[in-house]
Amino acid sequence: MTSNILVTGGAGYVGSHTVVELINAGYSVVVLDNLVNASMESIKRVEEITGKSVPSHSIDLLDRNALEGLFKKYKFSAVMHFAGLKAVGESCELPLLYYKTNLVGTINLLEVMKENGVYNMIFSSSATVYGAPVYLPLDENHPVGGCTNPYGKTKYFIENMLIDLCKADNQWNIILLRYFNPVGSHISGKIGESPQGVPNNLMPYVAQVAVGKRKELTVYGEDYDTPDGTGVRDYIHVVDLALGHLAALKKLDEKCGCKIYNLGTGKGYSVLDMVKAFEKASGKPIPYKITARRLGDIASCYADASLAENELHWKAERSLDQMCEDLWRWQSMNPNGYL
Amino acid sequence: MTSNILVTGGAGYVGSHTVVELINAGYSVVVLDNLVNASMESIKRVEEITGKSVPSHSIDLLDRNALEGLFKKYKFSAVMHFAGLKAVGESCELPLLYYKTNLVGTINLLEVMKENGVYNMIFSSSATVYGAPVYLPLDENHPVGGCTNPYGKTKYFIENMLIDLCKADNQWNIILLRYFNPVGSHISGKIGESPQGVPNNLMPYVAQVAVGKRKELTVYGEDYDTPDGTGVRDYIHVVDLALGHLAALKKLDEKCGCKIYNLGTGKGYSVLDMVKAFEKASGKPIPYKITARRLGDIASCYADASLAENELHWKAERSLDQMCEDLWRWQSMNPNGYL
Repeated sequence: MTSNILVTGGAGYVGSHTVVELINAGYSVVVLDNLVNASMESIKRVEEITGKSVPSHSIDLLDRNALEGLFKKYKFSAVMHFAGLKAVGESCELPLLYYKTNLVGTINLLEVMKENGVYNMIFSSSATVYGAPVYLPLDENHPVGGCTNPYGKTKYFIENMLIDLCKADNQWNIILLRYFNPVGSHISGKIGESPQGVPNNLMPYVAQVAVGKRKELTVYGEDYDTPDGTGVRDYIHVVDLALGHLAALKKLDEKCGCKIYNLGTGKGYSVLDMVKAFEKASGKPIPYKITARRLGDIASCYADASLAENELHWKAERSLDQMCEDLWRWQSMNPNGYL
Repeated sequence: MTSNILVTGGAGYVGSHTVVELINAGYSVVVLDNLVNASMESIKRVEEITGKSVPSHSIDLLDRNALEGLFKKYKFSAVMHFAGLKAVGESCELPLLYYKTNLVGTINLLEVMKENGVYNMIFSSSATVYGAPVYLPLDENHPVGGCTNPYGKTKYFIENMLIDLCKADNQWNIILLRYFNPVGSHISGKIGESPQGVPNNLMPYVAQVAVGKRKELTVYGEDYDTPDGTGVRDYIHVVDLALGHLAALKKLDEKCGCKIYNLGTGKGYSVLDMVKAFEKASGKPIPYKITARRLGDIASCYADASLAENELHWKAERSLDQMCEDLWRWQSMNPNGYL
């Protein structure tokens, strides 16, 4: 048996882009996805892009037996754990679903990994674990745990589990990657973010306005302490983010124990910056209206990305224009996503 | 069907004492326990004390089907959720076991409660959620989340789940009781704390020294900033603690939503205070040796217990001497616990 990388949530947005880069770099990949918030169409597209077939399994991490079966079928050298629910608003309405899916899914995965002697993991964490910034840019030593919604708490709780696991047993090598705001798409326009219903994130919403699916963008607050009053975030091209995972995978070979890295660009852009950049890339006007601030939103959030550069030798390289051009290509080629 | 109180972990130390007080107050009780860290002998003793039979089920909260069966068999008006692993040191060595047992067990319980329309819960939390005190006495508004061990983190994480659940769905009424340090036993000497192996907590260790099972007590640190240099804690008689649960149960009738209360006495005693009090109660010398501080231990920890007094109309009433006399009665009548 050759050694494979198991990618949980591999049919999702970040997962599918990472699968492309893994295959391009010569890795063997096995995808697991429960398809609750994704479509196997994305894996077909990955196969078109890469010219390789990708073994994919429609398995829920809560189905312990199916998971055990998968680990019997393949030999994995590492697991990239993207699977999980991720909508902030929904998590406030359905906290038990979020705690169950994200925590129990991860606990099952860790147990089955251990039973099969697989001790290498890369986990999709989020800058949301930092809560409201005490200082900027956010480095990895910034205090964590100030999350106010169940989604963010699940990321923080899982980080704790993984850190404690590495402390207790030095066989484990686990890298926590704290994502800032992934946007954009693969340059082919074949894969991208395909939200169900109303997009939760800014750029998919903007793209749906451009393509005529939504009337106008709602901007929440123009009175933040930022250059133009709208919220500032660190948007990172999803392909750069995917490449960050490959850099982390190499780090695992060093038997690194538990490591934590921000994956961001280090640059902050405002909502209006993003709207302008997307109008330029798409040639479409993005009508918007300003309303009141949204509870729980912060003014600014951007990364100190130097630790990943120093230790993983990885740096985000794609520009804001590329993010918007690639997103527009995906959106205009696939106005309804994978549907 | 009459309405029952389900007591998870009802064969354990705090659970069994609470079952006695529930029955004495006229409640119908059903006990669930996986017996991993408890013995059904405690329930036999509860039956001797109360003269009532106590329906008891050897069920693990991780066994979802068995749990569903129990909720089909009985109609519950509320759940007192004591079940969980609780040894700090062990939790550092076996974090995944602790996260799984405590978190997944609680998630299963909440799901099955919801499916059966049971929305009232009292949860055994702990003063450990406060982490290192920023001020003393600890009131319920003290910052939480500074726990450094997986056991304490599971209490903190579960508190978060329960708070979020109440926020999302106002059918839920959940009271989080933050225990300080329960000691002592029922006055009959028939039930008490029966630790497996070397006791993790001070007073069971002291009692085993008195009864000749252990040679001497080890006191960790005599250079803390406390009156005699040894660590100060808020010891509460387990029967007072049990009565706090009955007071909380009445509060649930008010459809109180989510409430949080300290259960402590408000008084701090040092390790050496406790040793002296136990020597007096038992008439036995307690030899001890002083060694270095233990990592993660804090100097002092005691409650502001006024909120429970004001809102639950409950107050700890048993003295330090009673705690020691009752513990000694249990220990001398049962030198090997329930074994």
